Amino acid sequence: MHALYWSGRELTFDLSYRAPRADERTAVVKVHLAGLCSTDLQIFKGYMSFRGIPGHEFVGAVNEGPADLVGKRVVGEINFGCGECDLCARDLSRHCPKRSVMGILNADGAFAEYVAVPIPNLHTVPDSVTDEEAVFTEPLAAAFEILAQVQFNPGDEVLVVGDGKLGNLCAQALRLTGAKITALGKHPEKLALIKKAGVRTVLLEDWKARSFDVVVEATGSATGLELALSAVRPRGALVLKSTIAGAHQLSLAPIVVHEITVIGSRCGVFTPALEALQEKTVSVTPLIEKLYTLRDGLNAVAHAARRGARKILLRP
Amino acid sequence: MHALYWSGRELTFDLSYRAPRADERTAVVKVHLAGLCSTDLQIFKGYMSFRGIPGHEFVGAVNEGPADLVGKRVVGEINFGCGECDLCARDLSRHCPKRSVMGILNADGAFAEYVAVPIPNLHTVPDSVTDEEAVFTEPLAAAFEILAQVQFNPGDEVLVVGDGKLGNLCAQALRLTGAKITALGKHPEKLALIKKAGVRTVLLEDWKARSFDVVVEATGSATGLELALSAVRPRGALVLKSTIAGAHQLSLAPIVVHEITVIGSRCGVFTPALEALQEKTVSVTPLIEKLYTLRDGLNAVAHAARRGARKILLRP
Repeated sequence: MHALYWSGRELTFDLSYRAPRADERTAVVKVHLAGLCSTDLQIFKGYMSFRGIPGHEFVGAVNEGPADLVGKRVVGEINFGCGECDLCARDLSRHCPKRSVMGILNADGAFAEYVAVPIPNLHTVPDSVTDEEAVFTEPLAAAFEILAQVQFNPGDEVLVVGDGKLGNLCAQALRLTGAKITALGKHPEKLALIKKAGVRTVLLEDWKARSFDVVVEATGSATGLELALSAVRPRGALVLKSTIAGAHQLSLAPIVVHEITVIGSRCGVFTPALEALQEKTVSVTPLIEKLYTLRDGLNAVAHAARRGARKILLRP
Repeated sequence: MHALYWSGRELTFDLSYRAPRADERTAVVKVHLAGLCSTDLQIFKGYMSFRGIPGHEFVGAVNEGPADLVGKRVVGEINFGCGECDLCARDLSRHCPKRSVMGILNADGAFAEYVAVPIPNLHTVPDSVTDEEAVFTEPLAAAFEILAQVQFNPGDEVLVVGDGKLGNLCAQALRLTGAKITALGKHPEKLALIKKAGVRTVLLEDWKARSFDVVVEATGSATGLELALSAVRPRGALVLKSTIAGAHQLSLAPIVVHEITVIGSRCGVFTPALEALQEKTVSVTPLIEKLYTLRDGLNAVAHAARRGARKILLRP
């Protein structure tokens, strides 16, 4: 099959990669669309020492697998747990110590014609949700994860720091809690997208320091983190949504002095994200920048790496 | 009155400092005993730019104030809120943005014959609690603050990193939750004290990495923090109990990847600490290293600053 292959040193378009096969635990999905994520770009810089087919945001149709699933449109959760440990038993396979992760850790991903996915990881996509919407399920689920971790009250003031794709999706998910959401960013055109989705926005150069009950850090930069921490009220919460690679200088004293709770937040379950897409309570397609063919994948990656690029999609 | 005075550059024994006076909001307490805390030592290095009489751990007797309090033995909460804001209304005057803090911020402290304390901050000391025990109420309340912030379950595995005074009090307070507590430290003699109080202990050189549901960082060092973070299970909690001055290098990525909750924890209310002292469920007097007279305060401070010193007390 056709696939993008990351050797650890270079990304190539492979015309004859061995196609995955289904077995009693795994289905094979024909990929309709896959999304490029900043984690993919980090992988091309050496993150996780991954080798294989990258890609973990996808929508497709089951090609091989259980009879009741074949032909169904699906998306798939990306953490493949062992299915036997304590964490897997508690529906936390995304924290299973023996997990593999699609396109990130010991499992081929979705930048290919076909991808293998454990059957319990698959979710069928409602007919009313298009492929272009469904391909956002994984990043949107990561945004909804915040709602599973933090208790929001209707009057709460919430600040989302960062106006990129992650900040946009977080702001939209948080808006559904009834809390008052403000998004803070550097890019007028990106803030305009968030505003269009019904969220109040502030440009960084107009920012006046004030306190919020909950602050979500979605910039992926150390300076963003410092600003975010400074905006949390005493006894408030800071949600860390983006992994900031490497060590950086930071004083943690304000966390202790103001008794702030810092909540690390990564992947989420897909159900609330799919529901929101079905109910049209979030708007994701304005985030699409351009669609590339898989064959043109190297140009797609170069485009995704451009500063300020929105979502780049690949079609096998 | 006699007092230790910190000018911002030097600590002096003052024979004729102006004694505080009571008013409708404030009582004057004759100090029986005061404790030296590492925050005091930080103040002598410039922390908080404090000027005045330091000292915030004390027990004494009301000398001037409401008739029903005069003569009573008391301890006092150290944060003096404005009494009017939202946080004060929610019994969180320790986070009041206009607060002064005894011996730390805009309020004279207890290294003196007399100290002024807002009446609502005072707690009477039960007869069965000695002065030598009661003087630990403030640091013990800071340890009990963890129990007010974190939900512990009987089988939970909890690690306290740090075997100093703070680690000792935290381990003892946490033991009362029914969780399984392990204290980790560098000093056999300090760990022996913690063990005597009924807590399992491990010497750092015998430490084998494993995961805990909750980890309490009580070392006050950046390396302690890194070890503490590495010992938290996925979705577990890290309690930051010691303020680590200044910025330091740290990667926060594990917090996001493992969805760890970090809880800043500072001062606590006095009631549970006083109850524990009354019920003898904690043992604090083994932590006393030496008692000095106030006149000998400079030597007391030098002693407290020695590596590994336990609690130094001052008697006016």
